[in-house]
Amino acid sequence: MSRPRVVIAGGGFGGLTAAKALRKLPVDVILIDRRNYHLFQPLLYQVATAALSPGQIAQPIRAILRRQANATVLLDEIVGIDTARKVVLGRQAGEIAYDTLILATGATHAYFGHDEWAEVAPGLKTLDDATAIRRRILEAFEQAELAIDPAVRDAFLTFVVIGAGPTGVEMAGAIAELARHTLADDFRNIDPTTARVVLIEAGSGVLPAMAPKLAKAAQAGLERLGVDVKLNLPVTGCFPDRVEAGATTIPCRTIVWAAGVKASPIGAWLGEGVPLDRAGRVEVSSDLSVPGHPDIFVIGDAARVMTSDGKQVPGIAPAAKQQGGYVADVIRARLEGRTLPAFSYVDRGSLATIGRGEAVVDLGWLRFKGFLAWLFWGLVHIFFLIDFRNRLTVMFDWVWSYVGFGRNVRLITSGGRAPEAKQPARSDPAS
Amino acid sequence: MSRPRVVIAGGGFGGLTAAKALRKLPVDVILIDRRNYHLFQPLLYQVATAALSPGQIAQPIRAILRRQANATVLLDEIVGIDTARKVVLGRQAGEIAYDTLILATGATHAYFGHDEWAEVAPGLKTLDDATAIRRRILEAFEQAELAIDPAVRDAFLTFVVIGAGPTGVEMAGAIAELARHTLADDFRNIDPTTARVVLIEAGSGVLPAMAPKLAKAAQAGLERLGVDVKLNLPVTGCFPDRVEAGATTIPCRTIVWAAGVKASPIGAWLGEGVPLDRAGRVEVSSDLSVPGHPDIFVIGDAARVMTSDGKQVPGIAPAAKQQGGYVADVIRARLEGRTLPAFSYVDRGSLATIGRGEAVVDLGWLRFKGFLAWLFWGLVHIFFLIDFRNRLTVMFDWVWSYVGFGRNVRLITSGGRAPEAKQPARSDPAS
Repeated sequence: MSRPRVVIAGGGFGGLTAAKALRKLPVDVILIDRRNYHLFQPLLYQVATAALSPGQIAQPIRAILRRQANATVLLDEIVGIDTARKVVLGRQAGEIAYDTLILATGATHAYFGHDEWAEVAPGLKTLDDATAIRRRILEAFEQAELAIDPAVRDAFLTFVVIGAGPTGVEMAGAIAELARHTLADDFRNIDPTTARVVLIEAGSGVLPAMAPKLAKAAQAGLERLGVDVKLNLPVTGCFPDRVEAGATTIPCRTIVWAAGVKASPIGAWLGEGVPLDRAGRVEVSSDLSVPGHPDIFVIGDAARVMTSDGKQVPGIAPAAKQQGGYVADVIRARLEGRTLPAFSYVDRGSLATIGRGEAVVDLGWLRFKGFLAWLFWGLVHIFFLIDFRNRLTVMFDWVWSYVGFGRNVRLITSGGRAPEAKQPARSDPAS
Repeated sequence: MSRPRVVIAGGGFGGLTAAKALRKLPVDVILIDRRNYHLFQPLLYQVATAALSPGQIAQPIRAILRRQANATVLLDEIVGIDTARKVVLGRQAGEIAYDTLILATGATHAYFGHDEWAEVAPGLKTLDDATAIRRRILEAFEQAELAIDPAVRDAFLTFVVIGAGPTGVEMAGAIAELARHTLADDFRNIDPTTARVVLIEAGSGVLPAMAPKLAKAAQAGLERLGVDVKLNLPVTGCFPDRVEAGATTIPCRTIVWAAGVKASPIGAWLGEGVPLDRAGRVEVSSDLSVPGHPDIFVIGDAARVMTSDGKQVPGIAPAAKQQGGYVADVIRARLEGRTLPAFSYVDRGSLATIGRGEAVVDLGWLRFKGFLAWLFWGLVHIFFLIDFRNRLTVMFDWVWSYVGFGRNVRLITSGGRAPEAKQPARSDPAS
């Protein structure tokens, strides 16, 4: 008799936690991901700003699950689900049958109906996104160095980050540091420390998930770094040479999108009758299964999960991991003929770093900021990094950069995603 | 009175050595490179085989020259030289005047009149080349895992390296190790240790620059690793699904080109009357200047330089560095009204690694192989790495991988150069 098969779509925090938690159960696990690596997304902005290299925050999924005999990894993309026949359709592998399906496919950028902005205002979700943004930022300084027209030079030295959640705040702070510290002495015609970093937010404050006092402290920290924080300013247009927000126009050549996400197209895969919220997240039942599909679970950024007091569980790594672990428990309980109480989210707090030696930590019962918060932030992130080797190298790089030896990975490599995006931004003063 | 200006084209070993050696002279140095980084090319094959990450063997040229007040770095591509008016033409910066010009623009792959092979048989010269080859190799294993037809699977598990010079030998050995050690337990449907690595060489032996006994030892080392070494076999065709060499056909999906190089188009820039050899290298005078152009020097892989006993100086890093230093000396001597004796190459020997704990070293006066040679090879390469931080991280990674903890950077990122090259190689068993 063959063992029940659990198919997991997505090797992020949720999917991988579920796969590992199923290790000792009498099931076969198939984990499908479009990419061959698990990504430690909370540090992705550090790759985009040349502080860490891709290999330090990513690990091959095969390597992580190598010793788990009941787990098979497939590098493939999901294109559909046939719930009646209980098969997932992979672009290359074709039909993959499941007894239980865990959808942990995450989210991607949302441009609120303006997908044409994607070209000029890339978001930050994958390693390729990060190296592409790194290339754009570094090339902007290079183009500024070559520019003859002062207006063109100033536009190349203006960096706009849209959205002041954790990613936007950390990106803005990291770009400011790159300009003010790392690149300070690198050029002869321009002074990188005069670069302008603008953080635009449609809402009334940065880090809305944080306690207001800490959020204010974060904003003050950004402003000390020289970041121009613009609140209550919804962006109305992104172009190769400017950002428009109502009557405000900011000439710039580098835009980073950190404003919105939408879930993977699970709704389209599952068909009619699956309740979705506006961002395309599946409104799951209290055991994280899809209403009407008890054998299909959705976890992480692709799911809309409510806390006991009616708030939405945030789209962060700890939440996805808790959900992955819970679903593995549900599967075990079902195998054993038991039932489990509803999923309940344990909020362990949130934290964000603003710059070198500056962070805010909100644990609910404890709130602090400054250097101690930055150390705490660093320790937490190092502790949760996927493997021991990376913990060592990341720690080494942070200490190295903190004591002032700069960032090493300021490499302009082709990066892939948008090679053509360079063209409209070129000044070509001479040709 | 303005100081004489030395323009250096190329930030490789030769150009960078010249720039640094001009540090204390009363000249202005302008270093132009298409890329923003200096690359430690001898270890590039380790990026292509996922042993090191790009940031470990590259460093921003700006960072290297940051403290050198008389040096300016321009990220630009040279498109022409007007020797009459003494200006270099940059694609973006336009005309750049020089008093003395040092051309250190290196070489690129040569396909002996078959440029159409470039698409399926990429060479290894830049970081983008290396990450593209890494992606191809890793994807081949993934495709093999998904393949249903055994012939297709075997083709995906066959890796052909063309050319058995140092790069080809080191690539073949590193792919064999990747398959036999690193990936050994990663898959469920295929056994990566059965992968076939074929090293094809048109000549009669591997490593022709080495003493015959050492070259034989290197070949035996490769064969112990399972590499199929085919000598006296000129390749006649490279295709998406096979390599042809006369009557021999090898079905494969991954080909790496390590067979030939040609110099940058310096001949075209300088116009008629400049003597070139068959590979496009400039046949320089005994002071490394271009005959008829005493103010233009060519060094490194772009130059054909002869030793005192009539042999050609090899295209390796130590030779380029000696030439860069020599030209800086010539410039100083001219400023001081002195003349220098002709350039003379000091051969410090050659070395190549075959695999973990296995290398050959030929110092001329001392030849050895095996584990001690491997240690020596590692120490030399770590010693010459561009900066202290990278020396530490590379040493750490080598020790880590030697004691058996695997390679971390097995990441399939988009890589850029040839995204479409994947298509013809797809098996698509299901769709």
